[in-house]
Amino acid sequence: MIENDAFLRALRREPTPHTPVWLMRQAGRYLPEYNVTRRKAGSFMALATNPDLATEVTLQPLARYPLDAAILFSDILTIPDAMGLGLSFAEGEGPRFARTASDEAAIRALAVPDLAKLDYVFAAVAQIKRELHGRVPLIGFSGSPFTLACYMIEGRSSVDFATVRKMAYARPELLAQLTAVNTHAVVAYLNEQIAHGVDAVMIFDTWGGLLPAEAYRHFSLAPMREIIAQLAPGADGRPIPSIVFTKGGGAWLDEIAACGASGVGLDWTVDLATARAAVGSRVALQGNLDPLALLTDPATVARMAAAVVRAAGPAPGHIFNLGHGIVPGTPPDHVAALVEAVHGASREHRAVA
Amino acid sequence: MIENDAFLRALRREPTPHTPVWLMRQAGRYLPEYNVTRRKAGSFMALATNPDLATEVTLQPLARYPLDAAILFSDILTIPDAMGLGLSFAEGEGPRFARTASDEAAIRALAVPDLAKLDYVFAAVAQIKRELHGRVPLIGFSGSPFTLACYMIEGRSSVDFATVRKMAYARPELLAQLTAVNTHAVVAYLNEQIAHGVDAVMIFDTWGGLLPAEAYRHFSLAPMREIIAQLAPGADGRPIPSIVFTKGGGAWLDEIAACGASGVGLDWTVDLATARAAVGSRVALQGNLDPLALLTDPATVARMAAAVVRAAGPAPGHIFNLGHGIVPGTPPDHVAALVEAVHGASREHRAVA
Repeated sequence: MIENDAFLRALRREPTPHTPVWLMRQAGRYLPEYNVTRRKAGSFMALATNPDLATEVTLQPLARYPLDAAILFSDILTIPDAMGLGLSFAEGEGPRFARTASDEAAIRALAVPDLAKLDYVFAAVAQIKRELHGRVPLIGFSGSPFTLACYMIEGRSSVDFATVRKMAYARPELLAQLTAVNTHAVVAYLNEQIAHGVDAVMIFDTWGGLLPAEAYRHFSLAPMREIIAQLAPGADGRPIPSIVFTKGGGAWLDEIAACGASGVGLDWTVDLATARAAVGSRVALQGNLDPLALLTDPATVARMAAAVVRAAGPAPGHIFNLGHGIVPGTPPDHVAALVEAVHGASREHRAVA
Repeated sequence: MIENDAFLRALRREPTPHTPVWLMRQAGRYLPEYNVTRRKAGSFMALATNPDLATEVTLQPLARYPLDAAILFSDILTIPDAMGLGLSFAEGEGPRFARTASDEAAIRALAVPDLAKLDYVFAAVAQIKRELHGRVPLIGFSGSPFTLACYMIEGRSSVDFATVRKMAYARPELLAQLTAVNTHAVVAYLNEQIAHGVDAVMIFDTWGGLLPAEAYRHFSLAPMREIIAQLAPGADGRPIPSIVFTKGGGAWLDEIAACGASGVGLDWTVDLATARAAVGSRVALQGNLDPLALLTDPATVARMAAAVVRAAGPAPGHIFNLGHGIVPGTPPDHVAALVEAVHGASREHRAVA
């Protein structure tokens, strides 16, 4: 039993007393207490692979703010790390792989990793669930098969992922081989998270939006559809609620909404009212305040958060979030103003309706 | 009289014997002869401000390939340079302004520049027109008021233009003041290009796609609509054909198509067939092969170019282009394969239809 299940109800398009809110990267560098734990751990990977510390940072934002969901503290790239590519994070930089999978031999050699290598993730899930005491739901997640492929091929982040796009055009069968092995791995990984107690899962497709529409369908959306179809049921025996989020996928909303997920994440460029009109009651929508709005001032934050709540409309099925991860320089009191504004504006909205 | 007016006819949605093709940054660093001229000039700005050299590089790609349009060699940021912000290009880097316009005092001090400061542009237009001898049309252009504002505020390129987005949220009246002065300047600038002989104009909105939909409408699309409405007629007394291109604007196509421009540029992520179905015969569409496709091999280039031609459908009103500027490492013979494939596939297409 979950005390505040507004997030899960919204994902099922059931009425809720207020609009549930959580924030991508809500456990992160904008929080002083996170930075203390991060220093204690020594490195990002040391933090992410230690279930006690991962639990600690997962719960930190919930101690500060009345958020409606917790999200497992981890990284989207744990799977390729478990495949042996050697993930690390240089201070203040993005992810780096010691080895890439960018040629035929390396890609053909990949296999679904032994899930025992990801035990630290499942142990964290179990521990977080215990320490949450059923207050709010816990979200598990993975990177999308295409987004994992982007990092596996380039070995790090990139402004244009040129090698990946060239492979999509000149060696489509090779990229498809890579996304296929990733798809099998993500299914196994998310189902193990579900077995350890997550209440919903989200697939982060950070880079699918760089592709031409047809390549997006083939290399990113189809694998995500395949994953959703193979998810195990949740602890209550019902289908596990799921969210897919393709950054830059606003123009493809219709197709994304048909992939079988309960909800679709929207980046900050999407017109939420137009999106709701386009998808009707087929799926929940999650989003989509510009994370940079949190850098302004509490009054502007509150005004813009209320505008997002209004744009979502009166029908059930909206989960408030940012349109991308919270940025490190965000003042923590602006986040407080945001959460209060979302809860306040949405309760008013319902009172009037 | 223009000998090959397929580009202008396509912009007017009139039938053409083949799909006209030109490429964003067709005069650029992928061409060895461009690099020779560029070295001769000493700096990018020395090249851009010398009408003889600007004419020379504008015509270089037309000597190599049977392209259906020439585009003035210049930069999108000439207007803020003429306003006194001091534009330069460091070797291998993007644009830099010596001064920014990021606070209230600096923005209030801006004015439409004396057009005499941009005489080098108009002189280049006149000279290119003479040397083209009416072979193909000449396209003039400017950055969009919002895109100019992005560089004026940050002083250089940026991954997220955070200062601009914060200003849009916390100081909207200030950003509106900046885009208003830019709008007046772009109208005057494009009308002077028209007076000197350009046959069509294009507005490059490189960064509008970073904004939330409502902010995009207000700060980028509305100013572009205002510009289009104030354009002078062309030399033939008819409305000047115009193209607006918002990179990342695929989800807003309906609204962009209603801004009054003859054509809408599409980046490489947009599904061209879906776009055509959405806008019907209201506007021409320009695009949209991924420029990175040119890095593969001639056979892949030809296959993908033919697929874009097919996706555009049989109705008139398609101009083939890349979905963004050609990249420096592009092999020139791949461009030859591209142009040949577009002309060949579109002639076949018409023969069958």
